[in-house]
Amino acid sequence: MSAPLLIASNRGPVSFEEDDSGALVECRGGGGLVGVAGASEAARAQWVCAALSAADRRAVREGRVPTGVTMLDLDPEMFDRAYNRVANATLWFVAHLLFDTASAPSFDARTARDWAAYRSYGAAFAAALAAEAAPGAAVLVQDYHLSLTPRQLRELRPDLRIGHFSHTPWAPPEYFALLPDALAREVLLGMLGADAVGFHSARWADAFARCCVQVLGADYADGVLRHEGRSTRVDVHPLGVDAAGLRARGAQPDVQSRLPHLRELVGDRQLVLRVDRTELSKNLVRGLEAYRELLRSRPQWRRRVVHLAFAYPSRHDLPEYRAYTREVQRVAREVNEQYAEDGWLPVHLEVRDDHPRSLAAYALADVLLVNPLRDGMNLVAKEGPVLSTSGVSLVLSSQAGAADELGADAHVVNPFDVAQTAEALHEALSTPAGLRAERSARRAAAASAMPPTAWLAAQLAALA
Amino acid sequence: MSAPLLIASNRGPVSFEEDDSGALVECRGGGGLVGVAGASEAARAQWVCAALSAADRRAVREGRVPTGVTMLDLDPEMFDRAYNRVANATLWFVAHLLFDTASAPSFDARTARDWAAYRSYGAAFAAALAAEAAPGAAVLVQDYHLSLTPRQLRELRPDLRIGHFSHTPWAPPEYFALLPDALAREVLLGMLGADAVGFHSARWADAFARCCVQVLGADYADGVLRHEGRSTRVDVHPLGVDAAGLRARGAQPDVQSRLPHLRELVGDRQLVLRVDRTELSKNLVRGLEAYRELLRSRPQWRRRVVHLAFAYPSRHDLPEYRAYTREVQRVAREVNEQYAEDGWLPVHLEVRDDHPRSLAAYALADVLLVNPLRDGMNLVAKEGPVLSTSGVSLVLSSQAGAADELGADAHVVNPFDVAQTAEALHEALSTPAGLRAERSARRAAAASAMPPTAWLAAQLAALA
Repeated sequence: MSAPLLIASNRGPVSFEEDDSGALVECRGGGGLVGVAGASEAARAQWVCAALSAADRRAVREGRVPTGVTMLDLDPEMFDRAYNRVANATLWFVAHLLFDTASAPSFDARTARDWAAYRSYGAAFAAALAAEAAPGAAVLVQDYHLSLTPRQLRELRPDLRIGHFSHTPWAPPEYFALLPDALAREVLLGMLGADAVGFHSARWADAFARCCVQVLGADYADGVLRHEGRSTRVDVHPLGVDAAGLRARGAQPDVQSRLPHLRELVGDRQLVLRVDRTELSKNLVRGLEAYRELLRSRPQWRRRVVHLAFAYPSRHDLPEYRAYTREVQRVAREVNEQYAEDGWLPVHLEVRDDHPRSLAAYALADVLLVNPLRDGMNLVAKEGPVLSTSGVSLVLSSQAGAADELGADAHVVNPFDVAQTAEALHEALSTPAGLRAERSARRAAAASAMPPTAWLAAQLAALA
Repeated sequence: MSAPLLIASNRGPVSFEEDDSGALVECRGGGGLVGVAGASEAARAQWVCAALSAADRRAVREGRVPTGVTMLDLDPEMFDRAYNRVANATLWFVAHLLFDTASAPSFDARTARDWAAYRSYGAAFAAALAAEAAPGAAVLVQDYHLSLTPRQLRELRPDLRIGHFSHTPWAPPEYFALLPDALAREVLLGMLGADAVGFHSARWADAFARCCVQVLGADYADGVLRHEGRSTRVDVHPLGVDAAGLRARGAQPDVQSRLPHLRELVGDRQLVLRVDRTELSKNLVRGLEAYRELLRSRPQWRRRVVHLAFAYPSRHDLPEYRAYTREVQRVAREVNEQYAEDGWLPVHLEVRDDHPRSLAAYALADVLLVNPLRDGMNLVAKEGPVLSTSGVSLVLSSQAGAADELGADAHVVNPFDVAQTAEALHEALSTPAGLRAERSARRAAAASAMPPTAWLAAQLAALA
């Protein structure tokens, strides 16, 4: 009962690995939370997260988790059901409209058991937060893994000020209705246990509010949802990047040392770059198909462009993701078989995760391809222009939250429209250097308008 | 230039076959349009439709198409692209939220060619209607195949009063946005060429209006869309059945002669019936899985129930439909392998189309299972109670338009929730005969509240 500010998320700011000798090694963050972790440290938040691996569990048991982090060693079977089956295979798919509806989802007798695990998982976070929060403390609960936690926490500690933030999009009510009725209600009621819920884009915030109105009969006016005598603010806080911190990171030796190899690979060609997890919503296959269509319909770019596609492993526990990874590899191979010439390989697909290499590639890219089917925000679109040396064109999906802020200076595309995406790549490659640099600079400014520190502060202000 | 009332639809009220001797045989209708065809004949409408088969084309060339019907002999390749690739593989999938979005749709260089065919197809109807319509005539254009026709026709004949009716659901704007932007606009502008557009349910009408507001920036107030100086009414006309006509049809010998075999098949068990095309949106696989779950979780029904599943062939030109048909057959076989006992086969799956047999089965059914993922209306849910001899329980998807009118007296289910559907089957089977008959009678009354004649009249009144 001491922390005045707490953050809760499935993945925490630290994780652990075992080195070759079997010793525990502490790793700092990864992905979009890195910046938030730095900001939270500055704000002296207590961070509650789950142990995600055997090494994490060992760290918990051996007392190796650093001050400021509470890592929950949860029952592995409960965690698997909550994390893989409910959060990632159901709620993520709903938010991103990813279901092959003729066959999935299918809620059957196992659903109740999985859902009970998801409820227990959320309750474990609520219990830990309740135990550590000072009277009247502010608690910022992150994302779809923890949609039930705000209400569970409020029941334990009505004195707390609770916020929830969704890093994903939110589904329109017609699609959210795929969920079993009782579960749909429980998700919404869980989040309405918060005093404020936040989203990266007004589109997702509006969709959430409409779901509450239609499913729960909540009242929505002036950005506030009222239901069962309680009020919950609905806010939009578009997370940006810490430009200075990111540039400092980009200047470090592990990033700089990747540059020569990349420069050699690109040569005097233009570089079309993508950096993504191999995630269904990231739309890598259509991205490669658009690049193929570019080479077909605009043959002047053959030999004059290289596509570097970083496609890092993701969620290989789910069969859809393994199949998708194979499909990405197949299309990349096909493009190379079709168009490669002596001394020119059109596509370089890299599946080995290497964050410093990604940052180095941002510096060199001429065109950044960010074409998700649907994306809460997309930080790649924001990091790219910040790290670009001489300006980068951006081909950006209209369905990414980032399009709200960057769309005016990007080539905005419908992510399902391969022909349009190919034409956008052509236009992006054709943009004169001066104009490209100008637009890139405007995007870099927009991308850093709300860095993680300001983003955290905005959420806290909403709870004040 | 003589007809005061015209109806346009892809499939017309008559079709042709060749008998064993090669002679042309005229067939009357099929599916939901039968009743409408009868009503339209009474209203002396001129019906414009497409030739759908080689026999239809021959009938056109030999002048065998009856008075009152104009059958268009369109270029087969243009028809294939417009009908299969655009209407059925794209617009139908959008309306029913059927895409496996990670891989489909993918709009590429072929899309422009297919879309041009769809535009030509709509224009051919517009030209035929323009040629046949009397000055100031009313023209009722049917369904998603002909979304562009109202505007095309208006350009030719601004004097006409034009209505469009969608027999499908309509997608929410977030899903409608899957379409390439220019095509999405063209569909909406095409339909807004009408003076009135109609839908089976307020849900679909609202979704259409929201698409027009979001995509076109149209203004929507008091049930009227205003755009580019024109006004289009948005109406809800929930098509029902002609109870007297349907009962007369059920009394005919070809129907009655099917009864003894069905009675023998059912014996003294309760009959769970479904009647559907093998269409992805009809959700046959989850229906069979729900029946399997019923037998698993409520073993008291084993040997006491028979599931007769009529799954008629549909759209076998599309690979998804062939795969789906195999999946339906696989699950039906599995249920039988798992639960069959001496003298009891749990599932009878019938894939041979036999309309009189369907009507006969309605008379005997104890429970009718209608669980589409999404359905404009669903006339099976309406025909069943009308033809039931002693009352039939209805397990009905919340996502069928028919749920608006029949939901109060049905067991309403989320079509993705197999466990809930199984429990609804249990409740439906457990309903006492008196209550079942009562609820069935109320549904029969609701189902015939707006028979085809009244439905046509309502559309004409909207154009007055």
